[in-house]
Amino acid sequence: MERPGTWHDRRVGSRILARCCSWEAIKRTLPFLCWLPQYSIQWMQLDIIAGLTVGLTVVPQGLAYAEVAGLPVEDDEFYLTFSSSRQYGLYSSYVGCFIYCLLGTSKDVTLGPTAIMSLLVAIYTSGDASLAVLLAFLSGCIQLALGLLKFGFLLDFISYPVIKAFTSAAAVTIGFSQVKNLLGLKDIPRQFILQVYETFHKLPTIRVGDAVLGFLCIAFLLALKFMKEHFPRVYRGMPRCYRLCYIIVWVTTTARNAIVVVAAGLVAYSFHVMGLHPFILTGKTAEGLPQFQLPPFSEKIDNRTVSFSEMVQDIGPGLFIIPLMGLLESVAIARAFGLTNFLGSFLSAYPVTGSFGRTALNSQTGACTPAGGILTGFLVLFSLGYLTPLFYYIPKAALAAVIICAVAPMFDLSVCKTLWKVKKLDLLPFLVTFLLSFWEIQYGILLGILVSLVILCYSIARPKIKVIDPHGPTLMIMSGLSFPSVEYLRDTIHEKAFTDSLPPSVTLDFTHVNVLDYTVVMGLREIQHEFRSQGRTLLFSGLQPDIHQILLAADLKDFQHPLSVTTADLYIDGSVEPLLNNVPKASSELNH
Amino acid sequence: MERPGTWHDRRVGSRILARCCSWEAIKRTLPFLCWLPQYSIQWMQLDIIAGLTVGLTVVPQGLAYAEVAGLPVEDDEFYLTFSSSRQYGLYSSYVGCFIYCLLGTSKDVTLGPTAIMSLLVAIYTSGDASLAVLLAFLSGCIQLALGLLKFGFLLDFISYPVIKAFTSAAAVTIGFSQVKNLLGLKDIPRQFILQVYETFHKLPTIRVGDAVLGFLCIAFLLALKFMKEHFPRVYRGMPRCYRLCYIIVWVTTTARNAIVVVAAGLVAYSFHVMGLHPFILTGKTAEGLPQFQLPPFSEKIDNRTVSFSEMVQDIGPGLFIIPLMGLLESVAIARAFGLTNFLGSFLSAYPVTGSFGRTALNSQTGACTPAGGILTGFLVLFSLGYLTPLFYYIPKAALAAVIICAVAPMFDLSVCKTLWKVKKLDLLPFLVTFLLSFWEIQYGILLGILVSLVILCYSIARPKIKVIDPHGPTLMIMSGLSFPSVEYLRDTIHEKAFTDSLPPSVTLDFTHVNVLDYTVVMGLREIQHEFRSQGRTLLFSGLQPDIHQILLAADLKDFQHPLSVTTADLYIDGSVEPLLNNVPKASSELNH
Repeated sequence: MERPGTWHDRRVGSRILARCCSWEAIKRTLPFLCWLPQYSIQWMQLDIIAGLTVGLTVVPQGLAYAEVAGLPVEDDEFYLTFSSSRQYGLYSSYVGCFIYCLLGTSKDVTLGPTAIMSLLVAIYTSGDASLAVLLAFLSGCIQLALGLLKFGFLLDFISYPVIKAFTSAAAVTIGFSQVKNLLGLKDIPRQFILQVYETFHKLPTIRVGDAVLGFLCIAFLLALKFMKEHFPRVYRGMPRCYRLCYIIVWVTTTARNAIVVVAAGLVAYSFHVMGLHPFILTGKTAEGLPQFQLPPFSEKIDNRTVSFSEMVQDIGPGLFIIPLMGLLESVAIARAFGLTNFLGSFLSAYPVTGSFGRTALNSQTGACTPAGGILTGFLVLFSLGYLTPLFYYIPKAALAAVIICAVAPMFDLSVCKTLWKVKKLDLLPFLVTFLLSFWEIQYGILLGILVSLVILCYSIARPKIKVIDPHGPTLMIMSGLSFPSVEYLRDTIHEKAFTDSLPPSVTLDFTHVNVLDYTVVMGLREIQHEFRSQGRTLLFSGLQPDIHQILLAADLKDFQHPLSVTTADLYIDGSVEPLLNNVPKASSELNH
Repeated sequence: MERPGTWHDRRVGSRILARCCSWEAIKRTLPFLCWLPQYSIQWMQLDIIAGLTVGLTVVPQGLAYAEVAGLPVEDDEFYLTFSSSRQYGLYSSYVGCFIYCLLGTSKDVTLGPTAIMSLLVAIYTSGDASLAVLLAFLSGCIQLALGLLKFGFLLDFISYPVIKAFTSAAAVTIGFSQVKNLLGLKDIPRQFILQVYETFHKLPTIRVGDAVLGFLCIAFLLALKFMKEHFPRVYRGMPRCYRLCYIIVWVTTTARNAIVVVAAGLVAYSFHVMGLHPFILTGKTAEGLPQFQLPPFSEKIDNRTVSFSEMVQDIGPGLFIIPLMGLLESVAIARAFGLTNFLGSFLSAYPVTGSFGRTALNSQTGACTPAGGILTGFLVLFSLGYLTPLFYYIPKAALAAVIICAVAPMFDLSVCKTLWKVKKLDLLPFLVTFLLSFWEIQYGILLGILVSLVILCYSIARPKIKVIDPHGPTLMIMSGLSFPSVEYLRDTIHEKAFTDSLPPSVTLDFTHVNVLDYTVVMGLREIQHEFRSQGRTLLFSGLQPDIHQILLAADLKDFQHPLSVTTADLYIDGSVEPLLNNVPKASSELNH
C-alpha cells in the first residue's frame, strides 16, 4: 500500500528528531548516536515486531517490483521459465535498511524498491540489469551532490497537482502492466497505449488458471485490508480470548502480502507435484547473496562492448528524473537516500527510495527507532540465502495481485474535486501531467512543471490592482512588482490616468508591494516622466522601508517625501489612513 | 543615432493616438483615417521637412547597414569590387515607410533597417541574400501571428537589464565589425573574438588613405552632432541673419550622415579621376527598383537546389530571435511591423524594425503624422532609381564612420551604476547577457532571460516573512504564496513554533497575501494538522476576501471564524489591530 498523501509526515519527524541532537555535530552526522544510548528492552520488542512486519511485506513486494522494473528477462514462451532476474528486487531491499538504521533521522522511514521507482527503472533501462545497477550508482552520486550543494530547492518547483497527477498516472500504468500476468496473457508490449490495445485484443487467449488464482488473490488481499481497517480494537479489560483473536487477525491482515504469496505458492506446488501446470510460475531465482563488486561501467551485449558513455546515453533523461523523483518527498534525508543507492549499486541493487506504504506500516506497527530496519534487512538476506528455491513455485498472478493492491490506493482523482473548489487553474497542470504521463512519463512531469510555472509567471505578470477612488484615483497594487508586470502596470495606470477627466494626480498604493526590481523602477520613472510632462503628478503611498530605499536609490524626480505627501493630501476621510501609514512604520519597528 | 533608452516613448504615443479613435473599429484597422480628415497645410509643411530629413539619414544608413547585415558579398580581393548587394539595404528602407503611413498609430515611428537587426541578419543568414529575404517573410508571418494570438506577453519576460546588456553588446560588436572597413584591413573573420584578434594582428597592414578618411569622417560627424546639441536656439525676435544661420546649421547637422557620405564620395571620385585609388570603394550597386516577386522558397547554390526546409534549418534560432527582437519595443504595432516584413520580402527586403535613432530624429524635426514617411519612401526609391551609379564611389571607410557614430550611443554601461544602487542582483542577468552576447547573441539573450526568471522564482520560493511578536509569535507574510514557497513556509513556521517555549498558538498574518494556490493550501492544511495533533492552534489573520474564500473551500478544520478569533485573542495592544482587520473589509468595500 503506497500513500503519497503522507509525503510530509516524514519530514516533520525527521526535523523534530534532528533538532533533538542539533547541539552536537557528530550526532547530526550519525543520528543513531541519538537513540542508541536511550535504547530500552521495550523499544526493542516493538522494533522487532515492526522490523519483522515490514520484512514480511518487503520480500513479496521486492519479488513483485522486480517484475515492474522489467528485470525478469521476458521469456514467456515457456511458462516454466528457466532463468529470471527476480533477485534484483531483493538485492535492492536490504541495503537501505542497514544504512537508514545508521543515518536515518525518522523512526518510520523504510528505504527499498517502490512501485514508481521500479516503473521508472523499467522505462529508462528497458530490462537491462547492468543499466539498472549503473543507474543506482549514478542516482546515488547525483543525490549526494544535490544534498551537498543544497540544490534541494529545485524540488520546490514541482507542485502538488503535478505530484498527484504523476502518482495517479503511475498507479494506472503499473496496475495495468500487471493485468497480463494476472490473466496469463503473453507477448504484451511495454508501451501503455499498445499494452491496453493488445491486452484487450488478446483477451480470448486468457489462461483460466492464472485468472482464477489472480482474482482470488486480489479478493483475499482486499478482504484482509478491509478487516484490518474495520476490526474493533481491543483494550486491557477484555477477555484473553478476545485479545488472542485480535492478535491473530492483526498478524494475518498485516502480513497479508506474504500469506497470499505463500498460499498461492503452495497451491502451485501441489499442482506441480500432481504434474499439472495451470499457472505461469516465477521460475528460477538466483540463489545466494550478491557479490560486492564495482557497478558495471561497461557491459557486453552480443560480444560487443557497450562503453560507459553509451550506457549513460541509453539511460538518457532518467539520469535526472530518477534521482529527483527519489528525493521528491524528502530532501531532508538526501544523504541516506544517496548513500543507499551509491552503496546498493556495489551489491547489484537498482535505484530505491522511501516507500510510502511500508513507512506507514512501520509507523502503525509501533516502530520506536530505525533499528527495526536491521531485522527487515536480515529477513531479506535470509530469504535470498535460503528461500530462493521456493520462489520458483510462486505464480506470477499472485505477485501481480500484490502489485495491483499496492498501487491501487495511489490512484486518487478526488483531488480534482478539491482543485476545482480551491483553484480551478491548478487543474491544468494536473491534467497535463496525468494525460501526458501515459505517453512518456518524463514529458508528463516536465510539461506539468512548465504549466505550473507559466501559471506562476502569469500571476506575476498580471498583479492584481484595485482602484480605490475612481475620481482622484488611487491604484492599490496587491502584490510585489517584478519585470514581467511592468507593461501591465503601465497600461493600467494609463487606462485610469488618461481618462476624459484627466485627474491631476494618481496615487500608487504600495502597501502590499515588497518586491521591486530594476525594470519596474525604470518603468515607474518613465511613467512619472510622462505625468510631469503633462504637469500632473504620480504619487506613491504606503511604501515599505526597503521599497522606499529602492525608489530613493533610483533618483526618481519629485520623489522626496512620498509618505508625507500621502498623509497630507490624500485619505482625508481617515478610514484608509492608518492602514496606509502604519505598514512601513510597524514593519520597520517590529522587524526581527 | 540609436537610443534604446526611449524604448517606451513610442508605445505611449501609439496608445494615446489609438485611444482617440478607439470608438470606431474601422478607424482602428486603418489609423490613417484618424488624421487624414484633419490634415492641414501646416502639418504637411512639417511632415515634408521631417520626411526629407529622415530620408537623408536612411539612405546612407541603408547602404551602411547592408554592410553590417553582411549582404555585400565579401570580395575584398579587389578594392574596386565588381558586384555588391548593397541595394538590399535600400530595398528594405521604403516598404515600411508606406505601410506605416497607412497602419501606423504613432506620428514618429519609422520602420527600416537598423544596426541591431542587420547584425542579427548577418548572424543567422551569413551573407546569403535569399535567406535574408526568406527570413523577412517568415518574420513577418510570425509577427503577424504573435499579434493575432495576443502572444505579445512573451516579451514581458525580457527584463530591462537583459535588453540594455544586449544592445550594449550589439553596439560593441557592430562598431568593432566596422573597424576593418575604417582601416582598410582585409580578410577579417566575422566571429567577434577572432575579429578582435585578427584586427589587432593585421594592424600593420593598415591602409593610410582609408584610415585618414575614416577618422576624419568620425571627427566630422561627432563635431556636427555636438553642434546640434549645443547650438543656441533662435526665437522670433532675433535678426533674420541669425535665423538663416540657424537654419543652415540645423540642416547641416541634421543631414550630417548624407553630407559626410556625399563629401567622402566626391573626394574619392576626385582621386579616381586622377587615377589614384587611396580608398576601398563601395563598388557597383544594382540599379533600379526590385521586382515584385515571391520570396525565395528555395535557392540554387553551386548547381544544388537548397530546399525550403534546409533554408529554414540554416536560419535556425534566428526564426525566433529576429521576430521577437523586432517586436521588442513595441507590441502595440506588431501588425505594422509584421506586414512590413511580410510585404517587404516580396520586394527583396531583409527584416526591418522600428529605428530608435530615426524615430527620435522624426520627433525632433516636428513630424505631425506618419505621412512624412511617404516622402522618405520616395526619396529612397529615387536613390535606387537614379543615384546608384554614384554610390560606386562612396568609400567604405565613410560608411563605417556612419555606422560607428550611429551605434556608439547604444553602448551604455552607466546602467550598471544604477543597477548597483537599485538592485544588485539585477546586475547578474545584465552581465550574463552582456558577456555571452559576444560569444553567441542568442545564448546571451536566452541565458539572460533565464537568469532573470531564476531570480524571479527565487523571490517567489523565499517570500519575506516577518516575526511580529517573538513570544506569541505572529508571522507576517509579506507577499503572495505560490507552490515553490510551501517548504520554506513550513520550515519557517516550524522554526518559530517548535521552539523550547512551545507557544500554544501561532498566527499567520495574511494581510499582504493575495495569491494562494492549491499546493500552499495543502501545505497549510498539513501544518494545521500537526498543530492540532499537539493540542495547539494555527490562526490566520488579515485575510483578504478571496483568500478567505479559498481557505474555506479547502475545508480546513478549525477554520471557521478566523477574523473574529484574531480580533478577540490577539493584538491586545491595539496598535496593529486596525491594520490587520481593515484590509479585507476595506478592499472588499472598495473593490472596483
